[in-house]
Amino acid sequence: MNDSLRRFMESRGEDLVPVLEESVRRLNAPTVLKESMLYSLMAGGKRIRPLLVSAVLHDLGKVHPGELHVGAAVELIHTYSLIHDDLPSMDDDDLRRGKPTNHKVFGEAAAVLAGDALLTESFGLIGRAPALPDGDKVTLILDLVRASGAEGMVGGQILDIESEDKTLSEEGLEQVHRLKTGALLAFSVGAGAVLAGATAQQQENLKRYARHIGLAFQIQDDILDVEGDEALAGKKLRTDAAHGKNTYPSLLTLEGAKQKLIHHHTEAVKAISFLKEPEPMLGLLADYIVERSS
Amino acid sequence: MNDSLRRFMESRGEDLVPVLEESVRRLNAPTVLKESMLYSLMAGGKRIRPLLVSAVLHDLGKVHPGELHVGAAVELIHTYSLIHDDLPSMDDDDLRRGKPTNHKVFGEAAAVLAGDALLTESFGLIGRAPALPDGDKVTLILDLVRASGAEGMVGGQILDIESEDKTLSEEGLEQVHRLKTGALLAFSVGAGAVLAGATAQQQENLKRYARHIGLAFQIQDDILDVEGDEALAGKKLRTDAAHGKNTYPSLLTLEGAKQKLIHHHTEAVKAISFLKEPEPMLGLLADYIVERSS
Repeated sequence: MNDSLRRFMESRGEDLVPVLEESVRRLNAPTVLKESMLYSLMAGGKRIRPLLVSAVLHDLGKVHPGELHVGAAVELIHTYSLIHDDLPSMDDDDLRRGKPTNHKVFGEAAAVLAGDALLTESFGLIGRAPALPDGDKVTLILDLVRASGAEGMVGGQILDIESEDKTLSEEGLEQVHRLKTGALLAFSVGAGAVLAGATAQQQENLKRYARHIGLAFQIQDDILDVEGDEALAGKKLRTDAAHGKNTYPSLLTLEGAKQKLIHHHTEAVKAISFLKEPEPMLGLLADYIVERSS
Repeated sequence: MNDSLRRFMESRGEDLVPVLEESVRRLNAPTVLKESMLYSLMAGGKRIRPLLVSAVLHDLGKVHPGELHVGAAVELIHTYSLIHDDLPSMDDDDLRRGKPTNHKVFGEAAAVLAGDALLTESFGLIGRAPALPDGDKVTLILDLVRASGAEGMVGGQILDIESEDKTLSEEGLEQVHRLKTGALLAFSVGAGAVLAGATAQQQENLKRYARHIGLAFQIQDDILDVEGDEALAGKKLRTDAAHGKNTYPSLLTLEGAKQKLIHHHTEAVKAISFLKEPEPMLGLLADYIVERSS
């Protein structure tokens, strides 16, 4: 990984972790529920979504005291979605980030409820974000509803389940992933733009960037399921074919998927050519997304 | 039921249903997800929570264009909680409001996701409520997070599960129900007060009213589980004892529970004695809550 990206990830990660932790610790709530929420929230992971919020601010040369709250809000949503996706009635996964999945440790009922609570608290984090005008809070909450609910991530999850054992067109597959993964990544970029007070033109370009890295992210996920190392990934791989899932390699061949990955990387980098930074974090993040091994 | 309460329930119900329905129909989302959300949302039920929002406005002699949006938001939360509570890993119920439960019709995965989507959209309804200043939207969203998440309903649900097959003190049982049922009822009353622009003193009294009807509501639920008619209830009864649940009748005897019910009804009515209305809807609703047979 590029050195300045590594330093950026480390410094932002160090700032983010206490905000994530405090978002649960502050709650006057039953201990077992808080433990179950923290178990998944503190399990590490790449924190790509909060990083995108921070990278937009960084690359536009702006700072905002609400950066970590908004980043944490997206991370809570992402974490709840992993807990619910891993449930026996969904993907039925036993391992996540190298640890037993939430329901394996706390039981299914607590896992469902921990997910529900994380989802709920994420709106609280935006509502309490410092130095953010009420109008911006409402805008971000409505954006997050769209990105994470029926019109976004949850909708994509249903499409994904429905399309198992059917063959999708490339457009159909892109639609699944635009919703399932892309919407929340796009929210993160858009939220950074709101915090930075980006111009309409900047927002337009950032939206294009987000669309392409979202697809690149999913294609690389699919490629890693075929070629990746389970120890590095911290979860079971080679499961897509067994679940009858549509993936880029199954649709386009592995070679075709890799070409598609390069295409989206190139387009993402083009979209942020307006940035003054010689080595923008958003560009380094785009590189990382296509090169990552986990 | 009292005639003017019946007319009030019917007229507010008629206004609410299209708002509930539109909150899902408007979504650009997969059909099966919307069907699953609507199946539970449109299954009827007493709509007590939106009614409380409306009753506060009515009794304070106020109107607000956001009344139905805010009422619908609480009803979405209530509906999501029923879908998740009925799951096999939770209460494992097959029947709800006289119909097969959501997961029996749509499968467990879709039921989990429909619940997630309803929860998410409820914050959207508040964010889009007409004629509501951004500051009030943020206040209501933060109140709803507290009432429905780890510090409220979800926390109560975990406590309820944890206390199965253990004997709680009366305080312990009250704590479970204050969170599991009371918090969302109290939110509804408090949201009506925000929309009505109630004074601090009025809000204090209404909060006291809400606390007592919340407990009365749960005690009557427990009594109906012992004495009620399954056909009227539209769900399986006599299940609390089988699940090893702590209830007011099991703790205080049926007679003791009925005395407690009368106590909370009396206190609720006292708390709203400040209202100018000769026959306030909140009073009629308190009567209904303790007299209802389903």
